Amino acid sequence: MSDTIKYLLSEEQMPKDWYNLAADLPTPAPAVLHPGTLQPVGPDDLAPLFPMSLIMQEVSQERRIEIPEPVRQVLRQWRPAPLFRARALEKALGTPAKIYYKYEGVSPAGSHKPNTAIPQAFYNREAGIRKLTTETGAGQWGSSLSFAGALFGISVEVFQVRISYDQKPYRRALMETYGATCVASPSNQTAAGRAILAQNPNHPGSLGIAISEAVELAAQRDDTKYALGSVLNHVLLHQTIIGEEAILQMEMAGDDPDVVIGCAGGGSNFAGIAFPFLGLQLRGGANAKKRRIIAVEPAACPSLTRGKYAYDFGDTAHLTPLTKMHTLGSTFTPPGFHAGGLRYHGMAPMVSHAKELGLIEAQAYHQTACFEAGVTFARAEGIVPAPESNHAVKAAIEEALRCKREGKSETILFNLSGHGHFDMMAYTDYFAGKLQDVNYDEAALATALAGLPGVSA
Amino acid sequence: MSDTIKYLLSEEQMPKDWYNLAADLPTPAPAVLHPGTLQPVGPDDLAPLFPMSLIMQEVSQERRIEIPEPVRQVLRQWRPAPLFRARALEKALGTPAKIYYKYEGVSPAGSHKPNTAIPQAFYNREAGIRKLTTETGAGQWGSSLSFAGALFGISVEVFQVRISYDQKPYRRALMETYGATCVASPSNQTAAGRAILAQNPNHPGSLGIAISEAVELAAQRDDTKYALGSVLNHVLLHQTIIGEEAILQMEMAGDDPDVVIGCAGGGSNFAGIAFPFLGLQLRGGANAKKRRIIAVEPAACPSLTRGKYAYDFGDTAHLTPLTKMHTLGSTFTPPGFHAGGLRYHGMAPMVSHAKELGLIEAQAYHQTACFEAGVTFARAEGIVPAPESNHAVKAAIEEALRCKREGKSETILFNLSGHGHFDMMAYTDYFAGKLQDVNYDEAALATALAGLPGVSA
Repeated sequence: MSDTIKYLLSEEQMPKDWYNLAADLPTPAPAVLHPGTLQPVGPDDLAPLFPMSLIMQEVSQERRIEIPEPVRQVLRQWRPAPLFRARALEKALGTPAKIYYKYEGVSPAGSHKPNTAIPQAFYNREAGIRKLTTETGAGQWGSSLSFAGALFGISVEVFQVRISYDQKPYRRALMETYGATCVASPSNQTAAGRAILAQNPNHPGSLGIAISEAVELAAQRDDTKYALGSVLNHVLLHQTIIGEEAILQMEMAGDDPDVVIGCAGGGSNFAGIAFPFLGLQLRGGANAKKRRIIAVEPAACPSLTRGKYAYDFGDTAHLTPLTKMHTLGSTFTPPGFHAGGLRYHGMAPMVSHAKELGLIEAQAYHQTACFEAGVTFARAEGIVPAPESNHAVKAAIEEALRCKREGKSETILFNLSGHGHFDMMAYTDYFAGKLQDVNYDEAALATALAGLPGVSA
Repeated sequence: MSDTIKYLLSEEQMPKDWYNLAADLPTPAPAVLHPGTLQPVGPDDLAPLFPMSLIMQEVSQERRIEIPEPVRQVLRQWRPAPLFRARALEKALGTPAKIYYKYEGVSPAGSHKPNTAIPQAFYNREAGIRKLTTETGAGQWGSSLSFAGALFGISVEVFQVRISYDQKPYRRALMETYGATCVASPSNQTAAGRAILAQNPNHPGSLGIAISEAVELAAQRDDTKYALGSVLNHVLLHQTIIGEEAILQMEMAGDDPDVVIGCAGGGSNFAGIAFPFLGLQLRGGANAKKRRIIAVEPAACPSLTRGKYAYDFGDTAHLTPLTKMHTLGSTFTPPGFHAGGLRYHGMAPMVSHAKELGLIEAQAYHQTACFEAGVTFARAEGIVPAPESNHAVKAAIEEALRCKREGKSETILFNLSGHGHFDMMAYTDYFAGKLQDVNYDEAALATALAGLPGVSA
């Protein structure tokens, strides 16, 4: 029987500000560089792609940035999001640990992504923008931006990695239901796409290529901008509402996490849960205890645990600025696995910087172990996690089992970033024994790492 | 931009009782008859299939029946469910009407069905039952009972209509994730199934056949009972928590519905939203205003609008008792359409009785008009409705447009019984122009109606 306890904030308790980790870091993250001049980019360099309000957030050193009321109005449809004590899971594991999870699958698009899609659509509309382009892999981000576009009257064009476009038609149907246009990438609509198709008409695509296409299109038109669903500082900033709520909810529960866990692809949901707790620690004071903060990534695409901390491009066609991050190389194509949202060569610069400073840990798990953890979770707690979120579930279960071995009743908090309703085919494959652990090609990784720009600033 | 307003009750405000319409009806619903003796069935006749606690609820005349605390504990994971004012939809329609919707898609299984799956699993476990059998069409009910079985440690075997089993593997994956066994029906596991397969090895199945199989299996074993997801009085009873909450939430909003709408297949979500409001009217007093209460059904399976009010079986093999209801005939096979949850030949006896008493209205719509309404709703409100729920959305929009024509600012409340995450292929077909309106075969309906038992009691 479910012994789950729900901690729900009132709408009045929904955070009024986002939290900016940059204000509290002991040293600033390395500058973003212009790929031509190798000089730090200024706000104007980013203006073709983003409205100035988001660029100012990207470079802000302010600790608190106010969430505009029209954004709060939309977020209130599903926020504050619940935090649960997973007592049934604790019992199933026989652990003395206390396990809590913050659940972001309550948004209409089913994940944490609308937390940033909504403000991005809002700021773009304020700037008079009529159209947004973006990329998506599995489709969590593309469907979230489509949702935001529908609410704010902005048309959205999504370049979806072709292999996902073909294999996961349900997410595409969701984007189209919200009125967005979804294009398989590489496409004939851009020079970047045409160049790749010329070499290989059946190219399966990658997030790096899809970003190139979306950026290229946005840069060409004054009424069109580009939106990114992870990696950038302003995206991470928008996700901190997750951790800000979780801090209040852990107080409601009369508890305080010893371990904070999030899965990490580009790093946005991880930063969302982790950065506010990191801020407590960095600022010192009553809540400043040192917590273990763990980013969990797929073993098949392990940027934090196997990548190089170096300057690299965010995309394949090298249209983006250079950022210093943990990267597998922008020419690296991750192998196919079901957590498409974690299939990116790089990691958010701010997350990478925190890792370099020793503020966070990183772990990597293979997918079958993650699905096994997800099924254990679903049978105890009732919620079926997204394949990406299963990585966080796996790490939380591992920590709980460690506590059992060590006889410790630590408090574990993880972010359940989304539900798996659009990913049930992966569960079907898992039950049918068709799901296998995949590895990246060591030689290809070595090549990609060797091809890094070699810029040090 | 979304102007949606959310009305959320505290956990303390979650109803402590279910509401039983039988206590307030001016005349009792006709008796349920034993198919052999044609005499009213007693509790003992139903004992092979249901635990006595549920049978007592089935025949209860008590107005309020307490929700056991262990059931409330589970329901609190997602309840009280939110009620929203659909201001963005109102604006999109340009209507002076106020539109509210109660959203039941927040449950882990994604629909209202866990409201009854949880108490059914609880009462069976209290009675020492180890296994439950049931049927499912599209899979909303099967996945909900599987979810409940996982929480209460009861194994669940689901007979899924074969055509859905083959066409909708995602719902099956959800059932299996919860640990249930899912069998395509007709199957070789039962005499009922074998008899049908002997005639037609490729039979696509129907809910009536799947019920026969599940009932047959449950009746054979002492530790196994049967669970039904709609139609029966105790199922409708468990769903009244929807309307009980909605009454409180409409008070929060300072409003009171003139029109209450639910889609109706077997009738449970409709009864859930409608019966508590009907009770206010029947009991008289301060809130007793006459509201229009509308059941919305698919034009391709129109039991309330085209069926006969007569005694009929609930299943195809005629293993169930005879109930008086609006029926298309238990030998009638509804044509295939995407709202599989509304594809049943009969209607809940209590809903049928209310219709005969003139307490409720019924409307029927074809599926393409319902999907069009669902897309309009999704683009305004962000939530993608289940195909079943789209029928309620369609009726609500029609009422809102009537208000616009008539210049009336009526208050419309409808039940959004579930989300469409597992039904996106239907949306894909809709956008691709592949979705067509289907009609039942008039001759087959005439035959099925002519074959009714002809019992009058």
